[in-house]
Amino acid sequence: MESFTLRILGCGSAKPTRRHRPACQIVDIHGHLCMIDCGEGSQLQMCRYGISTSRLRHIFISHLHGDHCFGLMGLLCTMSLEKRLAPIDIYGPQGLADYFKPQLAFYAGALTFPINLHVVSTTEPQEVVVEKGYRVTSFPLRHRVDCVGYRIDEAQPLPHILPDMIKCFEVPHYAIRAIKEGADWTTPDGRIIPHERFVRPARQPRAYAYCSDTASKPDNAPLLQNLTLLYHEATYAEEHAGHAHEVGHSTAREAAEIATLCKPKQLLIGHFSSRYNDEDQLLKEAVAVFPETILAHEGMTIELT
Amino acid sequence: MESFTLRILGCGSAKPTRRHRPACQIVDIHGHLCMIDCGEGSQLQMCRYGISTSRLRHIFISHLHGDHCFGLMGLLCTMSLEKRLAPIDIYGPQGLADYFKPQLAFYAGALTFPINLHVVSTTEPQEVVVEKGYRVTSFPLRHRVDCVGYRIDEAQPLPHILPDMIKCFEVPHYAIRAIKEGADWTTPDGRIIPHERFVRPARQPRAYAYCSDTASKPDNAPLLQNLTLLYHEATYAEEHAGHAHEVGHSTAREAAEIATLCKPKQLLIGHFSSRYNDEDQLLKEAVAVFPETILAHEGMTIELT
Repeated sequence: MESFTLRILGCGSAKPTRRHRPACQIVDIHGHLCMIDCGEGSQLQMCRYGISTSRLRHIFISHLHGDHCFGLMGLLCTMSLEKRLAPIDIYGPQGLADYFKPQLAFYAGALTFPINLHVVSTTEPQEVVVEKGYRVTSFPLRHRVDCVGYRIDEAQPLPHILPDMIKCFEVPHYAIRAIKEGADWTTPDGRIIPHERFVRPARQPRAYAYCSDTASKPDNAPLLQNLTLLYHEATYAEEHAGHAHEVGHSTAREAAEIATLCKPKQLLIGHFSSRYNDEDQLLKEAVAVFPETILAHEGMTIELT
Repeated sequence: MESFTLRILGCGSAKPTRRHRPACQIVDIHGHLCMIDCGEGSQLQMCRYGISTSRLRHIFISHLHGDHCFGLMGLLCTMSLEKRLAPIDIYGPQGLADYFKPQLAFYAGALTFPINLHVVSTTEPQEVVVEKGYRVTSFPLRHRVDCVGYRIDEAQPLPHILPDMIKCFEVPHYAIRAIKEGADWTTPDGRIIPHERFVRPARQPRAYAYCSDTASKPDNAPLLQNLTLLYHEATYAEEHAGHAHEVGHSTAREAAEIATLCKPKQLLIGHFSSRYNDEDQLLKEAVAVFPETILAHEGMTIELT
């Protein structure tokens, strides 16, 4: 099965702690690396975990709070030191362009590769990337500033060939790919054998969605169906729900309630407030509502299966 | 004796490694914290070493390469989260204003305290700070881009009072401070006792200078006399001297040669290239020229005595 893994480089919130790093994730989808958010020190975390920048293809920024984007310039400058030539595509709300364009202009002479900044809608879902093996959609979140989530959908895998049928009809090797992709087979005596007879259905495609930072936004649920893994911020415990709502964040219970609407195979919670010495209470409150919940931590790798 | 300590938060160079962090130092001078350079992740290092941002008074930036300044916005935003009200003064070459003013304008609504950006000369030495107990001077370095070093001089300490003389002349307590500061004492019967008779000379004032990033610049030596501690970059070993010169850096031997001209009590070398797995060779090459050389490392604290 082709790669689809999530690596957590940072799952803290705005205020630095000794336990967590600012927001950053790396999704390896079919060999492409996609970064989601790039808080300060993200390139240092990549170095720590031995992740090369050379396979980075897309960078998705949720919003312009520093703990989600202040690592970007350092990462781009390091990629230039490494003499990268391939372009990189960076996606985010309008503020991404407003904030980073002057910085990119300042360092333009030092950058060795083209940077494509893509402004994504903060009011409507939008297909932002279509690659051969996957596509990425952005969707609005509900935070103090314009903020978007991202959903990465693997393309529908091709069905599995039934070797016995291939043998029986003496289908030559070169024709197999076309049959997998939906072509019927015409025998030498002119009979048409529908392709369904040669294959069994493929597995379900996998999908991942990232929702941070956001207050509870149940109307996103229709966009978040059929997920293998849902990452949802859970900055606060229930006892701080009032504050969470004031600052546009979710409690762990609210993250779990969103999961009950979206029914992912697993819910991963993160973006933990610096006020907690551990996340036991957050996990407890989420699991009570959605049992398939786990806590993010730096260095965590999840293979989507 | 009042505080004068140097804390190393980062002594690596541009490319991240697992061993070193980007440039950042904290000087505690008479209870004020001065930051010198603020590479990416500096605020995370402050958190790691338990250094509160509240005592930060001045931030000195040497130049606008990312490994010396990309931590600044994150630090300022965190200080706002901590509801800082006191202004902060930031010093650096013209590029500091060019690069950071648009960023500060972007986050102006979120910042809770005033920021004073001071552009320092890159062609002449300049007194940039005069506080009660110390002063700071900038001076030009020789790098690929405009770059300055900083020298922090403790004010001349007051002389020590001789208790026996105070007792002998029955000087009241309230008058002692004035005598330390140079006032003579007039006895009740009108005799004038010169203040020198009440004191013994104070110790020498301490001084620290920071030279990074720079190629060898011996003409700075007159500005760098009477130092307790000299920090000089030593990015490369002799075998890479050619490359060092191309990119405006020093070898460890060149750093030590500068020290032989300036005669500080101690030379501290840092800004190590990512190509070295350890700095043994750099230390060896420096010590051969200037024996009182030590290697910087993250977390190191040096008390200036």
